[in-house]
Amino acid sequence: MKSHLNIQKGGNKLPEIINHNFKRKKRQTLSVTDYVQAILSGNIIVLSQAITLVESNNLEHQKVAQQIVNACLPHSGKSIRVGVTGTPGVGKSTFVETMGEYVTNLGKRLAVLAIDPTSQISHGSILGDKTRMETLANNKNAFIRPSAAGDSLGGVARKTRETIILCEAAGFDTIFVETVGVGQSEVAVHSMVDFFLLLLLPGAGDELQGIKRGVVEMADMVAINKADGNNLQKAKASRTAYRNGLHMFPAKSSDWTATAMVCSATENTGITEIWKTILQFQQFTVKNEFFDKNRNEQAQYWLNETIQNQLKYRFENHILIKENLGKIKQQVQNGEITPFVGAELLMNFFFE
Amino acid sequence: MKSHLNIQKGGNKLPEIINHNFKRKKRQTLSVTDYVQAILSGNIIVLSQAITLVESNNLEHQKVAQQIVNACLPHSGKSIRVGVTGTPGVGKSTFVETMGEYVTNLGKRLAVLAIDPTSQISHGSILGDKTRMETLANNKNAFIRPSAAGDSLGGVARKTRETIILCEAAGFDTIFVETVGVGQSEVAVHSMVDFFLLLLLPGAGDELQGIKRGVVEMADMVAINKADGNNLQKAKASRTAYRNGLHMFPAKSSDWTATAMVCSATENTGITEIWKTILQFQQFTVKNEFFDKNRNEQAQYWLNETIQNQLKYRFENHILIKENLGKIKQQVQNGEITPFVGAELLMNFFFE
Repeated sequence: MKSHLNIQKGGNKLPEIINHNFKRKKRQTLSVTDYVQAILSGNIIVLSQAITLVESNNLEHQKVAQQIVNACLPHSGKSIRVGVTGTPGVGKSTFVETMGEYVTNLGKRLAVLAIDPTSQISHGSILGDKTRMETLANNKNAFIRPSAAGDSLGGVARKTRETIILCEAAGFDTIFVETVGVGQSEVAVHSMVDFFLLLLLPGAGDELQGIKRGVVEMADMVAINKADGNNLQKAKASRTAYRNGLHMFPAKSSDWTATAMVCSATENTGITEIWKTILQFQQFTVKNEFFDKNRNEQAQYWLNETIQNQLKYRFENHILIKENLGKIKQQVQNGEITPFVGAELLMNFFFE
Repeated sequence: MKSHLNIQKGGNKLPEIINHNFKRKKRQTLSVTDYVQAILSGNIIVLSQAITLVESNNLEHQKVAQQIVNACLPHSGKSIRVGVTGTPGVGKSTFVETMGEYVTNLGKRLAVLAIDPTSQISHGSILGDKTRMETLANNKNAFIRPSAAGDSLGGVARKTRETIILCEAAGFDTIFVETVGVGQSEVAVHSMVDFFLLLLLPGAGDELQGIKRGVVEMADMVAINKADGNNLQKAKASRTAYRNGLHMFPAKSSDWTATAMVCSATENTGITEIWKTILQFQQFTVKNEFFDKNRNEQAQYWLNETIQNQLKYRFENHILIKENLGKIKQQVQNGEITPFVGAELLMNFFFE
């Protein structure tokens, strides 16, 4: 908790429990109803504590967390959820900070979350660096929560998705979910947001930036960041290239045509236009009913994903599987049995 | 069976059972040992029958098939397995036919198999058109087997992989596995071959041909087909572009540098060079021990895939899941429970 305190400031409605020791004690004694009522009243401290329960791997914590999340569920959903991705160096943090200042000035309440599967390795996290997003961290209408670390992507994704529900129940109407532009985490983020924004650098093609084409295909908008100074012309050329290129991708099920824009988060240009386009997207997809349909499909997606992950987890932790998996793997490797016979043997152990 | 007869000709060692009625009767009465002995002696008719058992969804057939495949397993593996992909229109059939004639003239015994997940829909299959590959179909050193239809990709993949084992046990030392250049089937094919060949058309970039970059990344060689007549210069330009482009992909675990070549299957040019390169790849990877390591890893991959598919299958067919899945999906959709609570409830039913 300690390391998060600096960046979890916000509109504290219960200043009497700001004392750290008291807060810790308080957390242990709060009932599910206490949690839910405090969250619904916009209490940021209790929101943070509930997120910590969501992130905990302790089974007791998880049980309480599930009850809180389920009770908050009917109060969630009234938001626009925006995924922001792009490789390190593209200026994601600065972009989120500038965009965050802009939308909070418009009266929005913003929660910034992150999915960073690489944090399992480094035990860092995208938003973990306290020196970043300092302005936004001190903005009372913004809530910044670093990525849960030390977990599988499936686990981190579940935790982020449940955190979205809690933040929405606490009155945040704008959610940014940040991720790095590599690996599988984009698919996870894309499956929990309404609008998917890909940040790119001017000039370099997406292949040079390590962006997979699948990620470009998922984008509802490509924003060429750092479009300032000598880079401006290059950025505009990239914008043109992407505008042409994006038309060639298969039509989206939202019927929205992905677009490309330029911006400079440091010089605060292009931010208004990007936000307006996000709102246009929202209007467009609410009108054609994709907005709700998509959220429903995302819920089904996470149901299926969780079933698969759970089956895998229970299988791998079954006592007879633990005892026999190595031996059977060896037999498959030695060519004594086919992989299919090996799997059949393991199924017999598992369902014995 | 009937529809396969025309293209399942080959070196029949048992001409006395060529009579169709007799053969059908024979199939029902053969023991596992009979099957295995006949396959090991190179009997193509019995090989075909065994493959039909592998492809059957009848549980009794599957049991017999598993025993046959397991008994053949120690006699399999002495081959080069080549995956061939590319979108419809690139000339895959003609390429396989020309290359097939070439390698059988070198004294190789060739089995041509296919994975075509689209065949579930059309109930056709890549190699199903009897008018194609007529020359190769009449070549006594070639065995052509269409893709099993009406099944999931996982099912088709398992069947193809087991068919490879049977063909190798029957003495085929060269295996081509053909697939269409779209969707997930390339990953499946890539996971069962030693060498992965991507056929492309001259001129058009891979994005225009509907080839995902992931598929290009998997390729050990890109061959620009139809490099003849007016297309020759365009094909050479494509070759140069791919040679430059392929260098930019991450290094392969085989340490092999993917290359690009031109060929014309109709004019029979470039075929020798492509085959020589495949053999160079084989020598290179046998020497650096990747060849065996890769086959081991593929076996592990299929073990994991099969476990996952099996768990999914058993879950979906569990009586309590069938009874409750719809209701829980509805509750998730209505926002009454989170997907994670829904999955938990289903797990309780499944493991009750």
